[in-house]
Amino acid sequence: MIRSELLHNQKRIRDYGVEIGYIKTGKLNAITDVTGVTVGHVTLSNGNMQTGVTAILPHAGDLFHNKLIASSHVINGFGKTMGTIQLAELGTLETPIVLTNTLNVGTAANAVIDYMLEKNPDIGSTTGTVNPVVGECNDMFLNDVRGRFVQEQHVRQALENCAVEFEEGAVGAGRGMLCYSLKGGIGSASRIVKLEHRDYTMGVLVLSNFGMLSDLTVSSNPIGKALKEKMLHSHKEEDKGSVMIIVATDLPLSERQLNRILKRSVTGLSRTGSIITNGSGEIVLGFSTANKIPHAKTQQYLTIDTIHEEDMDEAFRAVGEATEEAVLNSLITAEAVIGRNGNERPALKELLEKFNLTL
Amino acid sequence: MIRSELLHNQKRIRDYGVEIGYIKTGKLNAITDVTGVTVGHVTLSNGNMQTGVTAILPHAGDLFHNKLIASSHVINGFGKTMGTIQLAELGTLETPIVLTNTLNVGTAANAVIDYMLEKNPDIGSTTGTVNPVVGECNDMFLNDVRGRFVQEQHVRQALENCAVEFEEGAVGAGRGMLCYSLKGGIGSASRIVKLEHRDYTMGVLVLSNFGMLSDLTVSSNPIGKALKEKMLHSHKEEDKGSVMIIVATDLPLSERQLNRILKRSVTGLSRTGSIITNGSGEIVLGFSTANKIPHAKTQQYLTIDTIHEEDMDEAFRAVGEATEEAVLNSLITAEAVIGRNGNERPALKELLEKFNLTL
Amino acid sequence: MIRSELLHNQKRIRDYGVEIGYIKTGKLNAITDVTGVTVGHVTLSNGNMQTGVTAILPHAGDLFHNKLIASSHVINGFGKTMGTIQLAELGTLETPIVLTNTLNVGTAANAVIDYMLEKNPDIGSTTGTVNPVVGECNDMFLNDVRGRFVQEQHVRQALENCAVEFEEGAVGAGRGMLCYSLKGGIGSASRIVKLEHRDYTMGVLVLSNFGMLSDLTVSSNPIGKALKEKMLHSHKEEDKGSVMIIVATDLPLSERQLNRILKRSVTGLSRTGSIITNGSGEIVLGFSTANKIPHAKTQQYLTIDTIHEEDMDEAFRAVGEATEEAVLNSLITAEAVIGRNGNERPALKELLEKFNLTL
Amino acid sequence: MIRSELLHNQKRIRDYGVEIGYIKTGKLNAITDVTGVTVGHVTLSNGNMQTGVTAILPHAGDLFHNKLIASSHVINGFGKTMGTIQLAELGTLETPIVLTNTLNVGTAANAVIDYMLEKNPDIGSTTGTVNPVVGECNDMFLNDVRGRFVQEQHVRQALENCAVEFEEGAVGAGRGMLCYSLKGGIGSASRIVKLEHRDYTMGVLVLSNFGMLSDLTVSSNPIGKALKEKMLHSHKEEDKGSVMIIVATDLPLSERQLNRILKRSVTGLSRTGSIITNGSGEIVLGFSTANKIPHAKTQQYLTIDTIHEEDMDEAFRAVGEATEEAVLNSLITAEAVIGRNGNERPALKELLEKFNLTL
Repeated sequence: MIRSELLHNQKRIRDYGVEIGYIKTGKLNAITDVTGVTVGHVTLSNGNMQTGVTAILPHAGDLFHNKLIASSHVINGFGKTMGTIQLAELGTLETPIVLTNTLNVGTAANAVIDYMLEKNPDIGSTTGTVNPVVGECNDMFLNDVRGRFVQEQHVRQALENCAVEFEEGAVGAGRGMLCYSLKGGIGSASRIVKLEHRDYTMGVLVLSNFGMLSDLTVSSNPIGKALKEKMLHSHKEEDKGSVMIIVATDLPLSERQLNRILKRSVTGLSRTGSIITNGSGEIVLGFSTANKIPHAKTQQYLTIDTIHEEDMDEAFRAVGEATEEAVLNSLITAEAVIGRNGNERPALKELLEKFNLTL
Repeated sequence: MIRSELLHNQKRIRDYGVEIGYIKTGKLNAITDVTGVTVGHVTLSNGNMQTGVTAILPHAGDLFHNKLIASSHVINGFGKTMGTIQLAELGTLETPIVLTNTLNVGTAANAVIDYMLEKNPDIGSTTGTVNPVVGECNDMFLNDVRGRFVQEQHVRQALENCAVEFEEGAVGAGRGMLCYSLKGGIGSASRIVKLEHRDYTMGVLVLSNFGMLSDLTVSSNPIGKALKEKMLHSHKEEDKGSVMIIVATDLPLSERQLNRILKRSVTGLSRTGSIITNGSGEIVLGFSTANKIPHAKTQQYLTIDTIHEEDMDEAFRAVGEATEEAVLNSLITAEAVIGRNGNERPALKELLEKFNLTL
Repeated sequence: MIRSELLHNQKRIRDYGVEIGYIKTGKLNAITDVTGVTVGHVTLSNGNMQTGVTAILPHAGDLFHNKLIASSHVINGFGKTMGTIQLAELGTLETPIVLTNTLNVGTAANAVIDYMLEKNPDIGSTTGTVNPVVGECNDMFLNDVRGRFVQEQHVRQALENCAVEFEEGAVGAGRGMLCYSLKGGIGSASRIVKLEHRDYTMGVLVLSNFGMLSDLTVSSNPIGKALKEKMLHSHKEEDKGSVMIIVATDLPLSERQLNRILKRSVTGLSRTGSIITNGSGEIVLGFSTANKIPHAKTQQYLTIDTIHEEDMDEAFRAVGEATEEAVLNSLITAEAVIGRNGNERPALKELLEKFNLTL
Repeated sequence: MIRSELLHNQKRIRDYGVEIGYIKTGKLNAITDVTGVTVGHVTLSNGNMQTGVTAILPHAGDLFHNKLIASSHVINGFGKTMGTIQLAELGTLETPIVLTNTLNVGTAANAVIDYMLEKNPDIGSTTGTVNPVVGECNDMFLNDVRGRFVQEQHVRQALENCAVEFEEGAVGAGRGMLCYSLKGGIGSASRIVKLEHRDYTMGVLVLSNFGMLSDLTVSSNPIGKALKEKMLHSHKEEDKGSVMIIVATDLPLSERQLNRILKRSVTGLSRTGSIITNGSGEIVLGFSTANKIPHAKTQQYLTIDTIHEEDMDEAFRAVGEATEEAVLNSLITAEAVIGRNGNERPALKELLEKFNLTL
């Protein structure tokens, strides 16, 4: 299966001959290789407004009544992600995950609550409330973040746009984001985890917004240093260092096991050059589609499928590779953007061409 | 100093002859005994709408540029409190704390962001963004929580209402809350922590919304059992178990020390009878006014005042006593409320009179 | 079934007419009501030597190859318990739990390692190593803790002494411990958790070593205050505040669920009067016997039984009640002990008689 | 200043022309560049016995009465490190840190306790007890770990051997350790952190025992792949994945800030190729020498120096670079070792020569 025409013109890192790691990718090499997972964007682009929304739907069914085992991991907590307290306590996800800019988290939460109330007349009426999960990065360099341009309708639209195929780069929540001082945004990748009982899929989507050019490393190629020299950057590079990493998998996992996997995403992040600066938040959110946890109390106890701990290493390697490749895909697919006050960030692909550099 | 005329008619637990613990209270026996701390409510009460907002202002100055050392502690994470990830990472609070109902957290966050952007033109422009801290409990029994009645203007009004003296009981965010199957809501108390170097103040404010009647214990008096027998409750009691506990102090503390203190609030909670049910979230948020942390980078290192660890026991006892008394104040001051679908919760004070029981 | 003749002379709190909470106890009202769990002591008592070892065997089979889901919770981390890092990461217990005095933790760890190596020739040879779990309290008031009297053979003996019936009070690791300024030590209790699918058992064993007399509360009776007045204590009470709480259950639980239960033990602790002082460590260790986790990698994924989250409240109440009663049993069964430098702690039961007080 | 004659023959990674990162190293490029820090080894090498002890002395004074602010971070908790519960609760280190093999942690703890009791007659007598901090990796491939060869006297000797200059490679606790399927062990490095107020030092020491050859990357050179092809490894590589990372600095830091720094060590680890396998424990322990925390209660509050949060990025980069270089130093300095059952691990330096490869 090939990516749709709509997306054909997006050259990804593998199209430049770069192979990350050892493990085979899924068909689309995207988070949506995990069956049931879909992704949708709304992009807002007009002068000082360079922002948007990206939604991840974990499964197409009734999420509130059939929750997924989920977990989160804070790499750097200088961030405003909502919903992780309940995720940790109950180990479940009961809403889509929505990503947007930092100052629109409240609006996105409202929109997710609306969406859930509409679908579930029992929420707040005959059963309890709902826990929206919203992540963010700060896009204030290219976007007038004080404008708080994202409205509830945009979040709803992103949820409706959810599909197996989706664009990467300067789209959705990634519209105004920077990565290694270049244009960043949305990227994705996937890996096949071969265990004795079955092949499983590990998918990652990142909203990249971190790093300094001189640190950028592509599969052991310190291309950032080369670019930095060519570009004669005089300005002091400052990294506000945020990234959202969304991990989806159909591996049968307990929330503890999933959390162990989420923690390993940092290996891929580091291999691209990140030093995890003070800046803004670096948060990992993940879910497994293997077990459905019923909202309503059951008469019998539940049985949860989980892999044996000795099988974790394949998953650890997979999540690191997929994270690394997702970051690189966010960089290489992104178009240059000019935004707030004429601030601009170049596209990696254009710089490579301009300076005749190869990855 | 006595409480203002406005509040004169609110009889608190000590007015019933009940003394909690061994330590002397502050002047008002309220969180606002901590110098600089103010509290404001907006109450929305009309038929199915029984909800509101309570705001806590940690100090009257420029909070964003003079942050306070802060921490949070999750007793039970079945809740949707926002802002604790950054609180934990950076150890500071840079906004007021706002409490409201569960499905209005997004709106409250938006309002706090507005408020902060207005006061600080540099946020999102020449410096980074801001981390709103919003807590919640679920008031769906008395309030049509799906109506999401709280609007941004209500949050602003609550912030403007902030004062040293404030009402307790079925007001502000506490309007629709239950406690031990009776009417609960806002309660407060304080203690004086005498150390060799100075007297300090420990203040607590609770938004109580937890517990089953038969568990209610007032200063070792199992009054809940007695009431339960009198009331012939036939319905199955179900506890959704949430409480927000806000701790303020002028003790000089590191964020680690403050966190240790927050953890001890559970002793007071337990002494009133709580078993910390699965229900909704039980979250503690706290700050110390002793050190101001400048937002802007300083040329010199900072010096932070902290107490010696051996002095912690006084603070531990104080926070437990103040939490216990704040819960009891929320109960005894609350008026009966009839709300959603005619649901009602009686006032403890009325039941005591009706059944001729004493505390 | 009644407790054996050996133990007949130990009057427990219920023998004084005190009933804690609402839930039915197990047959022995002890941690060993959980099928498979056994407990053994070695008591060292001679002048300045007043210490010992208490061992808890989670099941009688091959623990290393059939691990149990386990968790730990730190109430106050001023302690030296070993083995909790791996417990948290892997969610399993693979050795007995051993309790002793603070400065003999290393010796106890050595003894547990010996025991495990002897039983499992594959450890450190064809498979990995083993994670001993050792808890402690500081008994230095009555015991010359610097003497480090516990030897590896004592730990082995305690493991061999493990049985369903066991003594409480000033025995085993509890020999030199204090509780509410009286003699404390080992106490236990259990509760039956009735769910729709089955009745389960929740068992608790405590090593009590915390509290100040004036705070002691027995089922809402502030007996500590009364005793304090009678005893005319002139010396400043100082609480070093440590307790080990061991929770065993046959409820089918994930490690996350078990951890939620462990956290609720603090409600029972608080109801006896604890303010959780700075002192020494207050640590909870727990395991569920419902699922066995194979050490060796399996070809298939595992299926783990867990209760529905809505069934947790019964477990929460049970662990609180059992912890409260276990603490009271540790107090009321303990004999007075005279130890290091002639230091002594009276027995609660003797004081009640002496001052003609009732519980 | 150059390294002593004793150590002259140890070629380190820089002697191979490899420069890691951007920041200047300290004089010795070792953890002992942090003033006051010393390191000592005892190496046990004889046939099946290939193990040892490495001790880190944080300062030369009375550690128990002048504690250091300290923290720990668990990268992968499949390990048996002792002492981190109290470190987290109190934020202080009061003993040397000792590293050894997994099954000798109890013995090492005993030795540290002995050492502390001897130096401090008040411990367990007129003041409380002491919290030994002991880390470990599993050296069972080269060492008969079941033999538990380390005795208390060896730990004492390592403590006495502590000096500013110390060997790296297959020495001390590193004697039997593997790294990237080659011989690993002890490595160290340091960085100068230039802030406006002063230059500070960040030092790292690792006990490396993780990784698979094909993943080894030296400063963006995937040398592991090249070596793997040359070596025609047919056996399945299995990573038990443990590493101890000790971080010392004279930066004035709160325990929260120190913890943030410890978390960034993973970036350096990842850049060498680690995927953080399930295996054994990966634990970071760190301390700052800038503030001394008195054991005895003070009459006044304490003042703690801390850097401004905006100055953290320099420290984050420094700890990543120093960790990366310390791992590489542990590899390149290590001699080949033949141990248990004739198991052997080659030295990286010999393989480079043999296959005529350059770093």
